[in-house]
Amino acid sequence: MRLRLRRMGVDTYQESVVYMHRNCVVCRSEGFEAQSRIVVEGNGRRIVATLNVVTDDWISMDSAGLSEAGWRRLNAPEGTWLRFSHPAPAESASDLRAKVYGQTLDVGQYERLLRDAIAGRLADIELAAFVTACAGDRLGLEENIALTRAMINVGERLQWPRTPVLDKHCVGGLPGNRTTPIVVAIVAAAGYLIPKTSSRAITSPAGTADTMETLAPVELGLAAMRRVVEREGGCIVWGGAVGLSPADDVLIRVERPLDFDSDAQLTASVLSKKVAAGATHVVLDLPVGPTAKVRSAETAASLGRLLSAVAQALGLVVDIHLSDGRQPVGRGVGPALEALDVLKVLRNAADAPQDLRERALELAGRVLDFVPGADGRSGSQRARALLESGAAERKFIAICEAQGGFRQPSAAPHRTVFAAPSDGVVAAIDNRRLSRLAKLAGAPRAPAAGLEIHVRLDQRVGAGEPLLTLHAQTSGELAYANEYLAQHSDIVKLGAAS
Amino acid sequence: MRLRLRRMGVDTYQESVVYMHRNCVVCRSEGFEAQSRIVVEGNGRRIVATLNVVTDDWISMDSAGLSEAGWRRLNAPEGTWLRFSHPAPAESASDLRAKVYGQTLDVGQYERLLRDAIAGRLADIELAAFVTACAGDRLGLEENIALTRAMINVGERLQWPRTPVLDKHCVGGLPGNRTTPIVVAIVAAAGYLIPKTSSRAITSPAGTADTMETLAPVELGLAAMRRVVEREGGCIVWGGAVGLSPADDVLIRVERPLDFDSDAQLTASVLSKKVAAGATHVVLDLPVGPTAKVRSAETAASLGRLLSAVAQALGLVVDIHLSDGRQPVGRGVGPALEALDVLKVLRNAADAPQDLRERALELAGRVLDFVPGADGRSGSQRARALLESGAAERKFIAICEAQGGFRQPSAAPHRTVFAAPSDGVVAAIDNRRLSRLAKLAGAPRAPAAGLEIHVRLDQRVGAGEPLLTLHAQTSGELAYANEYLAQHSDIVKLGAAS
Repeated sequence: MRLRLRRMGVDTYQESVVYMHRNCVVCRSEGFEAQSRIVVEGNGRRIVATLNVVTDDWISMDSAGLSEAGWRRLNAPEGTWLRFSHPAPAESASDLRAKVYGQTLDVGQYERLLRDAIAGRLADIELAAFVTACAGDRLGLEENIALTRAMINVGERLQWPRTPVLDKHCVGGLPGNRTTPIVVAIVAAAGYLIPKTSSRAITSPAGTADTMETLAPVELGLAAMRRVVEREGGCIVWGGAVGLSPADDVLIRVERPLDFDSDAQLTASVLSKKVAAGATHVVLDLPVGPTAKVRSAETAASLGRLLSAVAQALGLVVDIHLSDGRQPVGRGVGPALEALDVLKVLRNAADAPQDLRERALELAGRVLDFVPGADGRSGSQRARALLESGAAERKFIAICEAQGGFRQPSAAPHRTVFAAPSDGVVAAIDNRRLSRLAKLAGAPRAPAAGLEIHVRLDQRVGAGEPLLTLHAQTSGELAYANEYLAQHSDIVKLGAAS
Repeated sequence: MRLRLRRMGVDTYQESVVYMHRNCVVCRSEGFEAQSRIVVEGNGRRIVATLNVVTDDWISMDSAGLSEAGWRRLNAPEGTWLRFSHPAPAESASDLRAKVYGQTLDVGQYERLLRDAIAGRLADIELAAFVTACAGDRLGLEENIALTRAMINVGERLQWPRTPVLDKHCVGGLPGNRTTPIVVAIVAAAGYLIPKTSSRAITSPAGTADTMETLAPVELGLAAMRRVVEREGGCIVWGGAVGLSPADDVLIRVERPLDFDSDAQLTASVLSKKVAAGATHVVLDLPVGPTAKVRSAETAASLGRLLSAVAQALGLVVDIHLSDGRQPVGRGVGPALEALDVLKVLRNAADAPQDLRERALELAGRVLDFVPGADGRSGSQRARALLESGAAERKFIAICEAQGGFRQPSAAPHRTVFAAPSDGVVAAIDNRRLSRLAKLAGAPRAPAAGLEIHVRLDQRVGAGEPLLTLHAQTSGELAYANEYLAQHSDIVKLGAAS
């Protein structure tokens, strides 16, 4: 009882879906029903997919279609004969159940769960149950360490020829705040190793990898990444291409639409990536603000304690840095617009955003404090010197060239300026809605799309002065963003001028 | 920016899915991506659906397809012009988040969540997160009462002209164990009201509604159910058709594939249905055994305490009854095979399964003990008299006729007998695998499919004597069940004959 493979061309994000006609021989004989999980075998490979039963005649009785995710995983040519069977229950089904019922899992159990997740043996609702079962302080410290170790163990792990291996990571980013390329350039210019892997946007208008990609290629494999780091000391590549955290890539597919992650998952995710990338010393930046991911000093303190404790158990030295998360950092929000900010800072341009510059120097300084120099200067002093001398800019361009070539970010053709409706003082900026606005304008899909923010908190503005400029690739997207902005004109909230 | 409605004919079980071409004007201008939740409006109605982006050309750029679940919910003709927009976050999104992070919700919050669930405003992964967040003792008693009240408040609620209104419910059924039709017949024959709504199979090879359907129609609306109960005192109808527990029907769509529910959800689900059906006194049967849902006496005791406490808060009188859950009850497993057992018991047939008969009498007796008779006889004595006199059988046939007509269950054409491989004594029976086996044979989709079990625990059998008979509608399904049985020949475990 076989059917021929058809590529359906349906993007279901990451879930493998198989389409079969209700009356095909396989559905009838196997008793498969809608949403059944089914083993699909062909061309010497096997995947597990979720069944959608087709009751219309656009699929023939002798074929079975695969969604794009399933098509990529099976990797067989169209027309391949496929076999189907009921899957054995995932080995980790009992582990998932135990976790849902509040039991403590060990490293081995977490590894089993994560391996099943990576292999596509868990459905999205099972991943959602797993993520939920780990949320809200449900994991104790020991269990959080076990989860983190498991995330490391199921992926690749890099080794570097010398130590220390430095890194920085910002937890729960702010719009803009693209310090990473600057920090990497400074630290590498100082002669230290800083092999940075970054993510693409999950729920934000730009990830560091998206921004960096407007300046240089970021989809480097492990070998290419290694060559860049050996030559220049640092890199800024997309983590997804090097397979360092395959479990994280899978969990994101439910965390993104659910729009929640837990301190436990966040800790495991961040620290496992750092350890897998071979880092030995990491500065963790936690922006705190009412519309940032971390909303209060208490939350930041408890998250910081958790990160420190788990890092210690893994032999990773971390420095927790709480920063101001009340407003965006830099001017641009969106891949190319953020890249332009980065370039201005690196070039010591007169119109470089000073807040971005100062934050990058602060973070680079704290990274360099891990490795005190012989001359007694603070990390911050050394960082500033490397930036001002142009050494950081030269190093950044060299890294871009090593990654495949430096390029200039593109600009978006459609723009509108949103002006202050009255005189006033900037009282608050809603980071979340600002991010949403930039996404509606097309970021990060359209790299040049997004917005510029022209004001800072407590700044006095006159009626008619520009607050924001929207950038879009298409007029439709611009209209859409404008409409949202009209409905939420207090994204930049003006108070009475005192 | 509108597209024309197309019925895709894709059965995704209960999730509304909308299919759009990647390059259609709506996808491009709205920035929708795969798995986005999208508001679809047309014909004066609106639904929320999950987007699958089509990259192939089998859908035109000017049309949008809906899965069967979406098609049913929108209820608009093909070709209707549809509009699309980003949904406002579900009102209950913050409640869900609060619950996931371990906060306590009140009745109002649960109602909001359940109303959003019923209206299809929550995606399956959100429902999975909700179910998980309520699992494993995460709800205290007060919160469990709140959840139960909310489940009652969001659905219909029946009122009956007289009290008491009696009922029985078996929590976490065993294979077979189809006592309900017998108990209803006896209690109604005694002259009391017992308006029973039952479920279809969720993870089992047969629900009471599936079994009853092989004997009489069960898809009665509220008015028809009321007429049956007014005429005969009792009924056995499918709860899904009367809308008493719409929230439960939605949660089941994730509980079924996840294959877990929690004590809290179970309590809310069972008791809300009883209250909604207008019951005042309910016997709750908890079978306990190593492969039953309730695995130990301690678990049974704690679940029993929870059920009693929540019932008391709702003004419902319950009698918790722990029963032997170590093996199936009756001979048949599967809708028609179980129905045949029921008929034999009601007819006082010589070959009626005695275990089923005795359990039904015990339960009917406990139900009748809620309403002591003037003559001082126990409920159990009265139940036995009504069964032996034929009054129960006559009442059962009358109920079937009132529901639309009694009919004889069908028989399956394909059978194989599984014989004891050696002499021995039946040491254990694996209820879970037995259920799985019956499902592989085609139950409950094929009503006549399933299995018969010919032995009981501690029974001595000789090599070659039949242990099980498999029944299937197609030879393919029979082969599939046989294969599973060959791999799990210890479903009926034989010990050394002593």
